[in-house]
Amino acid sequence: MLYLIGLGLGDAADITVKGLEAVRSCSRVYLEAYTSVLTVGKEALEQYYGKQLILADRDLVEQGADEILKDADVADVAFLVVGDPFGATTHSDLVLRAVNAGIPYKVIHNASIMNAVGCCGLQLYNFGETVSLVFWTETWRPESFYDKICKNRRAGLHTLCLLDIKVKEQSIENMMRGKKIYEPPRFMTVSQAADQLIQIIQRKREEGEELGVTEDTVCVGVARLGADDQTIRVATLRQLLSYDLGAPLHSLVVTAQLHPLEVDMLRVNAEPNALEHLHMIDSSTYTS
Amino acid sequence: MLYLIGLGLGDAADITVKGLEAVRSCSRVYLEAYTSVLTVGKEALEQYYGKQLILADRDLVEQGADEILKDADVADVAFLVVGDPFGATTHSDLVLRAVNAGIPYKVIHNASIMNAVGCCGLQLYNFGETVSLVFWTETWRPESFYDKICKNRRAGLHTLCLLDIKVKEQSIENMMRGKKIYEPPRFMTVSQAADQLIQIIQRKREEGEELGVTEDTVCVGVARLGADDQTIRVATLRQLLSYDLGAPLHSLVVTAQLHPLEVDMLRVNAEPNALEHLHMIDSSTYTS
Repeated sequence: MLYLIGLGLGDAADITVKGLEAVRSCSRVYLEAYTSVLTVGKEALEQYYGKQLILADRDLVEQGADEILKDADVADVAFLVVGDPFGATTHSDLVLRAVNAGIPYKVIHNASIMNAVGCCGLQLYNFGETVSLVFWTETWRPESFYDKICKNRRAGLHTLCLLDIKVKEQSIENMMRGKKIYEPPRFMTVSQAADQLIQIIQRKREEGEELGVTEDTVCVGVARLGADDQTIRVATLRQLLSYDLGAPLHSLVVTAQLHPLEVDMLRVNAEPNALEHLHMIDSSTYTS
Repeated sequence: MLYLIGLGLGDAADITVKGLEAVRSCSRVYLEAYTSVLTVGKEALEQYYGKQLILADRDLVEQGADEILKDADVADVAFLVVGDPFGATTHSDLVLRAVNAGIPYKVIHNASIMNAVGCCGLQLYNFGETVSLVFWTETWRPESFYDKICKNRRAGLHTLCLLDIKVKEQSIENMMRGKKIYEPPRFMTVSQAADQLIQIIQRKREEGEELGVTEDTVCVGVARLGADDQTIRVATLRQLLSYDLGAPLHSLVVTAQLHPLEVDMLRVNAEPNALEHLHMIDSSTYTS
């Protein structure tokens, strides 16, 4: 049996009881280590689970799936995923390989950012399509997420923006030289995400385009959701630019039309010095 | 402290380790019992948790919140919610009351249908706004969910349809007589949901309206997601009408444009006699 087990969002104790029992019963346990991170590392998980974990980087999952699935028809193998196994990043390919090899699989679900973001006070019903922001490079500056945010906003829907994670990436130089030297991990911050959005807004303004999002749009910056030190900040996009929400992971929500109950909840979650912007929500964004 | 604790979707063991520890440490534990159900009842949860649970119906949560929050500033009180506390149904009102009373609160997240539905093979990225279907009555037949499904489909996005639950409802007769006699619980099935949708489609066709969804649209019926006997059926809306997916809870997904990997995953999850309809996905819906 292949178990795909969600670890939830905070630390080692966010695994479900069912998930923990499965982990402890498996002969091999892989930890997917490239699409998300908990607030604790591999060693803390190993100690908590009482099991050795095998780190599964992108190479192993995408090219070494046979190794992960080896003997899984006769033994139990666990594949641990931060959040939910079918959350933001799906592991459909691994499941399909298992099925094609005649290996049964079982999913043990958990919270992911896709549903837990509801705790910021915005109702999940009122979210549109989720978007991803990737780190821009000098030559690659995709902007399609901006259009999706605007489309959601026009439909009165909030947008969850998942922010890029670069783990075990090679520089182009090292890749070309075939050197397996990896860059330090990078996690996009809310501030960096705000910066990319504002750059797009400025360019569009200069080119005379109509703007679906501006520097004054009320957004929610979320950091380490589900952890004891989770941070939720409600502010305009411009203000988020200068906020430091601390350690990863960060996510950004661009709000649209707000229900009065959502405004009240944002007010609760907003840090004191962000509250002033909710005045603006009440008077303009809320009714627009 | 008020703990809002998600129970996940299957049975008692789907609570997180952190959630279970919190339940066991609380002096009073409420089980929210009107927006969703697990596959096991109150007694099984009490036995598993080693705690007595107080059933919290809609009356208690909406009108007796003070009772739930009593002494929560000095003692620990848990409020258990199937799925995630901020999943499909939010409990913002209870949180706001706690905050206003100076009671700190903490959320322990878990899987909800809003993210776990990804296991059917459709990517969460490709979902639009979630809709709710309520039981129609003779005089109240809301259709707004249909328009939202069509809007999602036009944007290439799937729609998760949450199906109505009626727990501890009074008949109008008993309500008018002030009799606290409650009707047996009712849970909308995928077949009933398909029936309502098809009735709307037929009326619109008769009135010459353009159709964004038809009886031949490929849908996914989901039952008891996360439980050992979860059932996922991929079929046209017309076919789902005659399928019996068994015990509650059910949900329905109306698909839109499908990515090849989604088609492969649907194929895996489809029961053998539903596979024939995927031919149609490949040839028409997939490219439309």
